[in-house]
Amino acid sequence: MTSEQVTARSGGRAGAVRTEAGAVAPLSSVRLTSGLLRHWQDRNVRSTIPHTIEQLRAAGNLDNLSRLLAEEPPPYRGRYPFLDTDLYKTLEGLAYEIGAGRTDAGVREFFDEVVGLLERVQAEDGYLNSFLQDAAAAKKPWEDLAWGHELYNLGHLIQAAVAARRRMGDDRLLAVAVRFADLVVRRFGEGGEGGICGHPEVEMALVELYRETGNRDYLTQARLFVDRRGHGNLRHSIFPPEYFQDHLPFRDLPTVTGHAVRMAYLAAGATDVFLETGDRTLFETLDRIWDDMVATKLYLTGGLGSRHSDEAIGDRYELPSERSYSETCAAIALMQWAWRMFLATGGAKYLDVYERVLFNAYAVGLSADGTAFFYDNPLQRRPDHEQRSGAETGGEALRRPWFGCPCCPPNIVRWMAQLGDYVAAERPDMLLVAQYAEARIETDALAVSVTTDYPWDGDVRLTVERAPGRPYAISLRIPGWARGVTLDGEPVTAEDGWLTVERQWAQGDKLRLHLPMPVRGHASHPYLDATRGAVAVARGPLVHCVEQQGTPAPVDDLVLPADRLAAAELASAPEGLPGEVAIRVTADVAPTAPPELYPEITEQPPVAEPPLTVPVTLVPYFLWGNRRAEAMRVWVRTR
Amino acid sequence: MTSEQVTARSGGRAGAVRTEAGAVAPLSSVRLTSGLLRHWQDRNVRSTIPHTIEQLRAAGNLDNLSRLLAEEPPPYRGRYPFLDTDLYKTLEGLAYEIGAGRTDAGVREFFDEVVGLLERVQAEDGYLNSFLQDAAAAKKPWEDLAWGHELYNLGHLIQAAVAARRRMGDDRLLAVAVRFADLVVRRFGEGGEGGICGHPEVEMALVELYRETGNRDYLTQARLFVDRRGHGNLRHSIFPPEYFQDHLPFRDLPTVTGHAVRMAYLAAGATDVFLETGDRTLFETLDRIWDDMVATKLYLTGGLGSRHSDEAIGDRYELPSERSYSETCAAIALMQWAWRMFLATGGAKYLDVYERVLFNAYAVGLSADGTAFFYDNPLQRRPDHEQRSGAETGGEALRRPWFGCPCCPPNIVRWMAQLGDYVAAERPDMLLVAQYAEARIETDALAVSVTTDYPWDGDVRLTVERAPGRPYAISLRIPGWARGVTLDGEPVTAEDGWLTVERQWAQGDKLRLHLPMPVRGHASHPYLDATRGAVAVARGPLVHCVEQQGTPAPVDDLVLPADRLAAAELASAPEGLPGEVAIRVTADVAPTAPPELYPEITEQPPVAEPPLTVPVTLVPYFLWGNRRAEAMRVWVRTR
Repeated sequence: MTSEQVTARSGGRAGAVRTEAGAVAPLSSVRLTSGLLRHWQDRNVRSTIPHTIEQLRAAGNLDNLSRLLAEEPPPYRGRYPFLDTDLYKTLEGLAYEIGAGRTDAGVREFFDEVVGLLERVQAEDGYLNSFLQDAAAAKKPWEDLAWGHELYNLGHLIQAAVAARRRMGDDRLLAVAVRFADLVVRRFGEGGEGGICGHPEVEMALVELYRETGNRDYLTQARLFVDRRGHGNLRHSIFPPEYFQDHLPFRDLPTVTGHAVRMAYLAAGATDVFLETGDRTLFETLDRIWDDMVATKLYLTGGLGSRHSDEAIGDRYELPSERSYSETCAAIALMQWAWRMFLATGGAKYLDVYERVLFNAYAVGLSADGTAFFYDNPLQRRPDHEQRSGAETGGEALRRPWFGCPCCPPNIVRWMAQLGDYVAAERPDMLLVAQYAEARIETDALAVSVTTDYPWDGDVRLTVERAPGRPYAISLRIPGWARGVTLDGEPVTAEDGWLTVERQWAQGDKLRLHLPMPVRGHASHPYLDATRGAVAVARGPLVHCVEQQGTPAPVDDLVLPADRLAAAELASAPEGLPGEVAIRVTADVAPTAPPELYPEITEQPPVAEPPLTVPVTLVPYFLWGNRRAEAMRVWVRTR
Repeated sequence: MTSEQVTARSGGRAGAVRTEAGAVAPLSSVRLTSGLLRHWQDRNVRSTIPHTIEQLRAAGNLDNLSRLLAEEPPPYRGRYPFLDTDLYKTLEGLAYEIGAGRTDAGVREFFDEVVGLLERVQAEDGYLNSFLQDAAAAKKPWEDLAWGHELYNLGHLIQAAVAARRRMGDDRLLAVAVRFADLVVRRFGEGGEGGICGHPEVEMALVELYRETGNRDYLTQARLFVDRRGHGNLRHSIFPPEYFQDHLPFRDLPTVTGHAVRMAYLAAGATDVFLETGDRTLFETLDRIWDDMVATKLYLTGGLGSRHSDEAIGDRYELPSERSYSETCAAIALMQWAWRMFLATGGAKYLDVYERVLFNAYAVGLSADGTAFFYDNPLQRRPDHEQRSGAETGGEALRRPWFGCPCCPPNIVRWMAQLGDYVAAERPDMLLVAQYAEARIETDALAVSVTTDYPWDGDVRLTVERAPGRPYAISLRIPGWARGVTLDGEPVTAEDGWLTVERQWAQGDKLRLHLPMPVRGHASHPYLDATRGAVAVARGPLVHCVEQQGTPAPVDDLVLPADRLAAAELASAPEGLPGEVAIRVTADVAPTAPPELYPEITEQPPVAEPPLTVPVTLVPYFLWGNRRAEAMRVWVRTR
């Protein structure tokens, strides 16, 4: 059975999110046909998935399950109680690609092997966690909700199970997930124990399980898990309550805070609860903390989280380039939240953030060859940066094949596989094109093919392949960065980020959207100390950076007055980088700085001669670090 | 017996460091008589010591020892294996103050109680660590050198023991320390186990124990501990080898790196080994990494360590104000290293750093009332900074009375008590005045009294109280920040930071040194992104900051063009702050910034009207945070 067959059966709602309760309905019947996103999916199938399966086997993630079938289980491998989720995230991604018939038999065998293990290992009562199910484990099931990650495990299990059912028509994993979810409802449901998980994630999953099964208990459970935070329901360990978003009730949060991935998963889950319950008090909080985040806490790349310590978000305007944590998982979580905010409101601004994250903070997490990963994503690498050799998680100079805490790699796998689900949505008699990619998009009434070289070029052509026999609207998102947009050659103005064309369409009708992509310079808010007096270069949705490779002066000595960008030229990407377009500018080279760290300000020394200028090539940020480990900068000083 | 009696007996060498092997010899016979440093010592005796004793009792540090005398010891209190060192550091400070006869009977009782406990608890073989001596402890003695902190414990024990002998003439603690040290020499000496401690500190202490006892085994042991690093002698836990300075042999270190306190203690210990062995290969490394640190890794305040994560130093030029970790213990460790580099070379530049740390990164660690502590010392507090409520260590908005990891408070106690030891030194027929404070300084040949209101004023008067019957030099350090220095009203020029006057002195002879203290502005190196386009204000050795309290505009909106500093005026410190001198300037208030975080650079908006200006009072950085928790900045933008 192929993806298209399943999609057809489920009426175009077989994607990652299935609500029809929001302002717009998701639309999963999008097939990426070419271009960068399709290249990413092909790379996922060809390289990242086989690599991930190999790493999971080598790291012992399967052994952790199979050992439980032994009389005397050998020790758990790895130090974290959430390593089952690496399997679940991988299965979720595989469900898409197996469903689409794009994988080989080995992948299918892996899928079946893991599902079979899970079926056999699951406890009588539905409990499933290979770390804590071991009778010899230091802790008992449910003993340490703050660090046990049991409900987090359940969340990823549910998401894999729902994907397997929707994309493959395979219900086996769903049966496992439902047994575990029912145990959770019995234990933590209304009138039950007041516990919550130290790592939010299950909320999104429970709402999706409700959507899939119609069992309202799961929705109630998700709501309870959101509502219980900040009420003393979690015994904390060494981390502060903010880390767990448990210092305040959700609705009282003044801002996104604490561990970045936890925060964004929680907010995405709360948005799901709002979508299905219509609880405006939830939305008011979500709306407020979203806007505050975008205005004060988000990196230009869409990265979230400034602090290595506690992998935390940080204060407003605390956005240092060199220590940007911007965990790859936080990028995925933020896209999930953004998409749900869009579903709730139809707001294009959420899709702008989605796009910013997709092409920058998310894409940078994976190497060009698809087999190495960044855990954290700084916006600057200093020339003498020391690579942390013993790191479990972040702090790396260049991408690594795997991690002791490998949450990011399989998260990338599942997200690559489902990128098509976030390309379009619909309202009654309206298709909304959320992201631009070469694709075929279908609703019940309409089919459209999109031809574009986006994000390398802003030309987007839509061809109607199948038309309804009535007036129907096609609404195109106009990115926040776009100026001078034309439709079929005529200047047009977007309304709240949308350009809507309503017609009686006929097969073969075409629309040609042009989003000019001049080179842009971005400054930063004066409260943002880390990037004062510096410019970041972007084009379309792509933030660019300068790498030391091929740059004829130390990158830290480059000075790029913003007015130079008017003369910027497009260039092909440097040898060895797969991007299509780079940016060529002329920068000054600052005179050799005096060695003093904090010189006393006396009279300004006269500038004796015009500075040396050099040609500099800026490459898309998501491609950095694919060559040698050398210096890199997104923000270049302007004088 | 008073301190002066002991001092007289030991020929002026009874201070914290006793080497005579360096370029200059330390001189412990300095009595602070008035002024800021003496005020700090009085506050130590009056407030910080009683507070610390109370906290140590309440936290269980004494119980951790006494429990071991029980048949079935109750559990250890606290989570760290180094809590005995909080007692040792306190004892070291008490030894100074008891020796000087400045404490009451209760303090003496505490001292005797702890010494008595240590004598009884010490194991047969000399081992002493209240965490690991418990047979029920999760680990065995010597099992985990990386995290057991046993040798670190020994280091602080030795330092307390040496201080007790030198300042009080009390040998009991020294007997305990020697038994433990001899066990270490038997186990880890030449031909023994190749282990090293995860936390350097014992190196300095072992060299001092050699100086005190003449037993060369201790010096050899210290040298071995330095030489063994970076040779795979330590099994690391979750932290990377850099954290422990164990990724490279000491002599191969390209730069100060890893955990800041560990790094500075190690460097100080290596300097001691150099002082006694004359091993130039050690000094070459020390010289190189010192200069590199000062040129690339030190905060303007003298703070060391940019990262909360791993409490680490960070890359070159990675010096963000808001996340400056600058642990208070690192400040003390850095002063120890600086002093030893001075002893090794006579170099005034090391004393400049000592002074910078003393009046800024160190002094800020203690509240004005002496009973609350900063663990980490940022140079900026954002208005919405969230106080971490569950922190074991740093990340606090304002000072706290104690910590789960209380290494800093007793370190402050011991250092305050011995400040006099770092005021002067001698060469043959020469007194070197290293720091300026109201004091009486004696060498065998000469006695001088110093009268000054330093650091509030740069006038320093020296009066010869006792003169030798031969020509003798008095060498005065001229701080690196000083310009237009005069001696007895005549302009003078320092040579390598020293101004030397050699005469046949007579009792009553006077010198009047004048170090002008205009208000200075400091810029920062162009590679230092975090402070680009900003100015820091200083006067004499004191870095200043602007606190929100009393400032008529948000501190983040202040703009202070550097040329405004020429019109700066001195003012009295604001109500509620004990400092004598503050700085008054006129700053602009930036127009309300647009809310966008990363505005696209288009044409510059014309400036419509002259900006609003407001008077702003800058206060000494070390006094910040003694009022409400509000915003603070050392670095203010210049446009």
